[in-house]
Amino acid sequence: MNTAWWLRPAATLDRHAAAAAHARQQTLTKPPGSLGRLESLTEHLAACQGVTCPKLDTVWISVFAADHGVAEEGVSAFPQVVTGEMVRNFASGGAAISVLARTLGATLDVVNLGTVNDPGEIDGVLRAIIAPSTANLSRAPAMTREQCEAALRIGAERVARARAAGADLFIGGEMGIANTTAATALACVLLDESPAALAGAGTGLDDAGIARKIAVIGRALHLHADAIDPFERLRCLGGFEIAALAGACIAAAQVRLPVLVDGFIVTAAALAAVRMNPSVRDWLLFAHRSHERGHARLLDALGAEPLLDLGLRLGEGSGAAVAVPLLRTACALHAGMATFAQAGVSEKTAPPVEARLEPVS
Amino acid sequence: MNTAWWLRPAATLDRHAAAAAHARQQTLTKPPGSLGRLESLTEHLAACQGVTCPKLDTVWISVFAADHGVAEEGVSAFPQVVTGEMVRNFASGGAAISVLARTLGATLDVVNLGTVNDPGEIDGVLRAIIAPSTANLSRAPAMTREQCEAALRIGAERVARARAAGADLFIGGEMGIANTTAATALACVLLDESPAALAGAGTGLDDAGIARKIAVIGRALHLHADAIDPFERLRCLGGFEIAALAGACIAAAQVRLPVLVDGFIVTAAALAAVRMNPSVRDWLLFAHRSHERGHARLLDALGAEPLLDLGLRLGEGSGAAVAVPLLRTACALHAGMATFAQAGVSEKTAPPVEARLEPVS
Repeated sequence: MNTAWWLRPAATLDRHAAAAAHARQQTLTKPPGSLGRLESLTEHLAACQGVTCPKLDTVWISVFAADHGVAEEGVSAFPQVVTGEMVRNFASGGAAISVLARTLGATLDVVNLGTVNDPGEIDGVLRAIIAPSTANLSRAPAMTREQCEAALRIGAERVARARAAGADLFIGGEMGIANTTAATALACVLLDESPAALAGAGTGLDDAGIARKIAVIGRALHLHADAIDPFERLRCLGGFEIAALAGACIAAAQVRLPVLVDGFIVTAAALAAVRMNPSVRDWLLFAHRSHERGHARLLDALGAEPLLDLGLRLGEGSGAAVAVPLLRTACALHAGMATFAQAGVSEKTAPPVEARLEPVS
Repeated sequence: MNTAWWLRPAATLDRHAAAAAHARQQTLTKPPGSLGRLESLTEHLAACQGVTCPKLDTVWISVFAADHGVAEEGVSAFPQVVTGEMVRNFASGGAAISVLARTLGATLDVVNLGTVNDPGEIDGVLRAIIAPSTANLSRAPAMTREQCEAALRIGAERVARARAAGADLFIGGEMGIANTTAATALACVLLDESPAALAGAGTGLDDAGIARKIAVIGRALHLHADAIDPFERLRCLGGFEIAALAGACIAAAQVRLPVLVDGFIVTAAALAAVRMNPSVRDWLLFAHRSHERGHARLLDALGAEPLLDLGLRLGEGSGAAVAVPLLRTACALHAGMATFAQAGVSEKTAPPVEARLEPVS
């Protein structure tokens, strides 16, 4: 058998392009470094795109929806039918990510990986049903090997589609009632943390609900304690949409497509992807720090400094979409500002030698 | 003599509109509160605009440029000629704020209040010259009473112009070599802090430069220790553009126009405005936490939680402009998302009574 596709190395960032972008930043009519994170963002995107002046005209958003067997443990504030109902809402334009995609002029690619409440064929939704839901991860592995591989592959296929459509940036989103339970369980094994340290309110659990969620995750961790390999951990504790997101991260890094990572669920998938294939990390940008409790620890483990911290916790890729205008603004400033020479503006004064020796005071 | 115009109370926020916006948020297809700060932003804007669904189609940016006598103390990393040079760059489209205004489709209103290196008549720049520069605030009051009143009035006039143009949001920006020295001096008296606690690198001073700046501000505070009234403090320690920004904040609050406050300089002006007229505070939104050292303390004093923290320190109103897409996104989500009823999506489940009493575990 050949090596699994997800182990193939990511593309290499173009360090020359990053250096050229950095050099350009120094010539623009502003104090050096005064655009802060917007400057480093531009340099990162330049390295991804292999150009001095990157662009983000074409943004592709794939939202992966799937149900979770663990929902039967009562770990969500919403009923399981909502996953299928929201698939319809994504397509009909009423969900947050639908509004955001319209606002950004982005492609919204909705992928149904399997919902208990099957919405059937819907215009604008790709049916890629693996099963109506995963197994209950607190009682069995969430996925079979074949299911997990299928989910990874579907994620990669959506990236290939995005690439073919000329996307400059990939965003993955998710919808799945009970998926913070799966993502938290996965985060616990990847971070070697206890459920009590990471479990949060998800869509709005009360304290009793969170206690129940912690207990359910605890049982799952005990049951799957032998799953050590990152793929096995993803298979036993993840979900179809989480595996698809991991596959998308890996594939995007392999085809030179930067990924803007959303919140808790997507970051858990991204960490799984990086554990499966560490070279993926270079291609991940992080949009925001979610309000969901375990997100900060996941970000730390990835060495990620997200752009926004607005208390978002909606999922669907919405937090990443909210951050896109910041990236576009960074690119617009980088490409559109005049240089000191073009504008006839004087540059920074070297401090006088006597001032260095003895401050006037 | 009549009461000064800047003491007239601000308009009252429309609490009914805010409540209606809040009620609408609860009906949209997302977990309640899951859009975090974007939800509270929308409610604030609803209160400002007196509507359930606010909009930010029309954004007005006034950039006030002025020179500072204190520049002669060697407190800036850039030569003083840059102020006038940048006025030309604003108008010709090469400055950061020029690029941002284009990107946002915003009006960019450039106001020259007086520069030592006079760029003369420039198409697209309002000449409203008060003097070539303020006096050196470490040796004399920065402004005469007439100059300070003129600057406040010009700020108010730009707001009136913005209002007449149908602006939904006002952004004030600034340009003035050495103006972090003036703003820091003003911040020191308004916050009762020492120069050493607040002075930062501005456009890029080295340690010796910062030490010099601290000493200069210390002399200024000593010289103007008798200035107790907020207007007097602004007059003695501010600058033409700082007073214009304060006047703009006050006038905007009086005519129901929300202000998106930029970084350190503008926040110092906003705090001066709030000290002159506390009712102004309700109309201020805060875009970002600047990298400039004293900004966090100014924000704290205003009870402000800025939207962004990206290490920006460019001025010109650029940080506020960078944040505009977030506000527009908040409005788009609020107006554009489907309700649970419209989308046929099930709402949150009330937790079962037994779950409240005894978690299943």
